Amino acid sequence: MTAPKALAFDVFGTVVDWRTSVARESAAFLAKIGRADRDAAGFADAWRLRYIAVMRAFRDSGRAYATLDVLHREMLEQTLRAEGIEPATLDDALLDDWNRAWHRLDPWPDAVAGLTRLKAGFPIVTLTNGNIALMLAMARRAGLPWDALLGAEVTRAYKPDPRAYLRTAQVLGLAPEQLCLVAAHHSDLAAARACGLSTAYVDRPQEYGGRRAPDADAAQPWDWSADSLTGLADLLGC
Amino acid sequence: MTAPKALAFDVFGTVVDWRTSVARESAAFLAKIGRADRDAAGFADAWRLRYIAVMRAFRDSGRAYATLDVLHREMLEQTLRAEGIEPATLDDALLDDWNRAWHRLDPWPDAVAGLTRLKAGFPIVTLTNGNIALMLAMARRAGLPWDALLGAEVTRAYKPDPRAYLRTAQVLGLAPEQLCLVAAHHSDLAAARACGLSTAYVDRPQEYGGRRAPDADAAQPWDWSADSLTGLADLLGC
Repeated sequence: MTAPKALAFDVFGTVVDWRTSVARESAAFLAKIGRADRDAAGFADAWRLRYIAVMRAFRDSGRAYATLDVLHREMLEQTLRAEGIEPATLDDALLDDWNRAWHRLDPWPDAVAGLTRLKAGFPIVTLTNGNIALMLAMARRAGLPWDALLGAEVTRAYKPDPRAYLRTAQVLGLAPEQLCLVAAHHSDLAAARACGLSTAYVDRPQEYGGRRAPDADAAQPWDWSADSLTGLADLLGC
Repeated sequence: MTAPKALAFDVFGTVVDWRTSVARESAAFLAKIGRADRDAAGFADAWRLRYIAVMRAFRDSGRAYATLDVLHREMLEQTLRAEGIEPATLDDALLDDWNRAWHRLDPWPDAVAGLTRLKAGFPIVTLTNGNIALMLAMARRAGLPWDALLGAEVTRAYKPDPRAYLRTAQVLGLAPEQLCLVAAHHSDLAAARACGLSTAYVDRPQEYGGRRAPDADAAQPWDWSADSLTGLADLLGC
């Protein structure tokens, strides 16, 4: 493989540990509404599974672009109902704050050091389904040194829609093969490869608390493969 | 004034000194094509004046969004023709490199220190007519520590179109009055104020080489006024 001209990162799961963070926040909110009996990690998993389904179906749904903050809020209310909790009985500001748990995700331990090293060698941008306000809040809180926040809100397409990958390359002034997607998800990398991007896999065995990822069957040999972002920096000579 | 929730910056002229940089680069390219007799600073001014005219007229022109890299290239060719130089006789790669002079603008001496201080207190984003690839290259070269690259390519509207200001606030999840435009241009600040944004003026008397700015008549008392970005950081307590 020739070296890429820029690195585009999946964020949820690849750079930040959504499950631990959303479970911790959900435990606090469940306690606030008197439902501390519920399994907060299970709540986070259920919320995330709705996300995966909505993203996969978004293009075919014909729905106009709405930000992930809006979609996450809808999924939160659905997840609550599935737990037998009617969101209409809850304070709107509390629901909004709970929804912003996704703005407050902690990075994996290697993420800031790895991104900082990779940034010395390549432009580093997000290629995320998260909206810009979400990514900006997360980056400032976690110290993620992005060169640019790209993804769904700029391309108006949600991964794995091919337009999300192709328009990101276009915005950067690059041919698809000059852009490398860095992701912990085989399904995301497979969609990027189908668009001509190069691919770097980062193994995150704790993303689902040690359980098998929903897209484990989509594994392929990727162009680069590492078990951390610092490991990827080693591979790419940064 | 209450403190803003985020600062959005005009870039060309406010953060970087386009005239010195484009004149320096144009002098080199004019020499390469055997026209070292031409006034490079005048060439930079002529290119910039076309930019101002194109931006002001863009919305009413009905033209679909095209990146500033594309528009700058058209203006470069027009500027060359006005100098009696036919661009079709020149190498396309040379013209492309010349056009990218706008990717290689030097910051004003206070810009990196000022932005770094302001970033400690506020999210700092661009609100620029420059496209993302241009801003990314400029930021990496000059060390500008933006939290996000926003502006025309995200909003699909060129300043002073009100949509450029209002959609930037929307993307940030802010009401217009929670966002402050920082700019060296009275016309830009006036358009932002008409949209409800707060306004911070930064005086750049050397932007036109010491000559009067084209929008000097649009001066108003702005919410904040400083003679550098470090001075603005002082005013905002950063």
